[in-house]
Amino acid sequence: MRTMEAIIRSAGKFLSDEYRSARDVSEKQRYDLVTTSDQEVEKFIIREIRSFFPEDGIYAEESGSHHGSSGRRWIIDPVDGTADFVFGVPYFAISAALEAAGGIVEGYVYNPIADEMYTAYRNDGYARLNGAEIHVSATEELSEALIAFGFSANLEAMEQYASEWGDLMVCCRKTLPLITPSLTICNVARGRIDAYIDTGSSIEGKAAAGLILQRAGGEIISYNKEYYAHLETGHICSNGVLRVL
Amino acid sequence: MRTMEAIIRSAGKFLSDEYRSARDVSEKQRYDLVTTSDQEVEKFIIREIRSFFPEDGIYAEESGSHHGSSGRRWIIDPVDGTADFVFGVPYFAISAALEAAGGIVEGYVYNPIADEMYTAYRNDGYARLNGAEIHVSATEELSEALIAFGFSANLEAMEQYASEWGDLMVCCRKTLPLITPSLTICNVARGRIDAYIDTGSSIEGKAAAGLILQRAGGEIISYNKEYYAHLETGHICSNGVLRVL
Repeated sequence: MRTMEAIIRSAGKFLSDEYRSARDVSEKQRYDLVTTSDQEVEKFIIREIRSFFPEDGIYAEESGSHHGSSGRRWIIDPVDGTADFVFGVPYFAISAALEAAGGIVEGYVYNPIADEMYTAYRNDGYARLNGAEIHVSATEELSEALIAFGFSANLEAMEQYASEWGDLMVCCRKTLPLITPSLTICNVARGRIDAYIDTGSSIEGKAAAGLILQRAGGEIISYNKEYYAHLETGHICSNGVLRVL
Repeated sequence: MRTMEAIIRSAGKFLSDEYRSARDVSEKQRYDLVTTSDQEVEKFIIREIRSFFPEDGIYAEESGSHHGSSGRRWIIDPVDGTADFVFGVPYFAISAALEAAGGIVEGYVYNPIADEMYTAYRNDGYARLNGAEIHVSATEELSEALIAFGFSANLEAMEQYASEWGDLMVCCRKTLPLITPSLTICNVARGRIDAYIDTGSSIEGKAAAGLILQRAGGEIISYNKEYYAHLETGHICSNGVLRVL
């Protein structure tokens, strides 16, 4: 097991305990809890990176950007899916991506409750889930397609998605609104769903999953763009054969 | 541990294995998989009920209604949250409720991936999560409230919720669209969230969770009604102090 995978699994154990203990937390502390968990996981991962990869830089939500001397940096999302975490939905993940020469070369996404570890390396075979190769679906027909959209029960977002993607919602087989980019992109990568469109996914949330999807045979492009830039927010991803545009 | 809890935990092990093996399933089989899992879990639970409670009746989605001689019947939902199951979101549950004299007297809701077993008995203390008492939140202010709404990315449903509940969505702290009634009602019961409104929740999906919420200090009423009838679809539930109407 690679070092970063072991680090993330350790952090995942902590996060899982925090999530389960949340039933003892009063309503006023709910967001504090996730903020605290977020910070603790991030601190732990940064400490481990500095210990095992002292020359690498780090880009993380809470701690900002630290330059390293290696020309490589780790893009960290300690808890992608904080809303799900707070609402009691076990659909959140730790994400870490290694960036070098402007691209992502290693990607890790881990759901500690389901114990699902997705990994991919740019020059090393297929993406994997808990060690087993994964591949995108082969769904070509929209009428058969399962598609996720990245909005919550927010009126403005609902209107935007309805106006921009209403035709797709009506034509495909089934849709769900899902707002945890790392895991939802990985669900496209493993072939559970066929496409996923999000106007506002963060850099940290999709850096690792974007590579995982590509190494599973899928496609990811930036929202409103024809190419993929992991440093832009928003994305359109698919199994590579379904036409969503 | 009561007999039904043991039965559901066994069924949960099977369901968890099915969910995890789904990565080997082609896209054409995805809905078949959940249908098969659904049927297998239901068959197993019915077989166990007939063995341990031979005089009780059964009401279940696939098998319909069977009358018993005891005046009691079990309302079973083998997989509440099939859309989440298919999309790769570990937010689905097995639900079983014992109905007697027109009311629910025992309720069980189990998420096998998170290993969360919610239980309640009408005349026996508080609702419990994995054996520990649970209580609703004390949130009174809408501006602090976390509220779930039962729609997916479906244009008609989105419009209906926006027109009927738009004010609430704007006023509360955070909202999520969630369509697994059993677990979402239980998340109100355990105090993770403060209210949950669903225009179309099924009888099977909420029968057990409704009792669990009541035994945790919360309130559930039928959609558009002032009282609660577990045999009607739709519901409005809350911690009992937050005013959502």
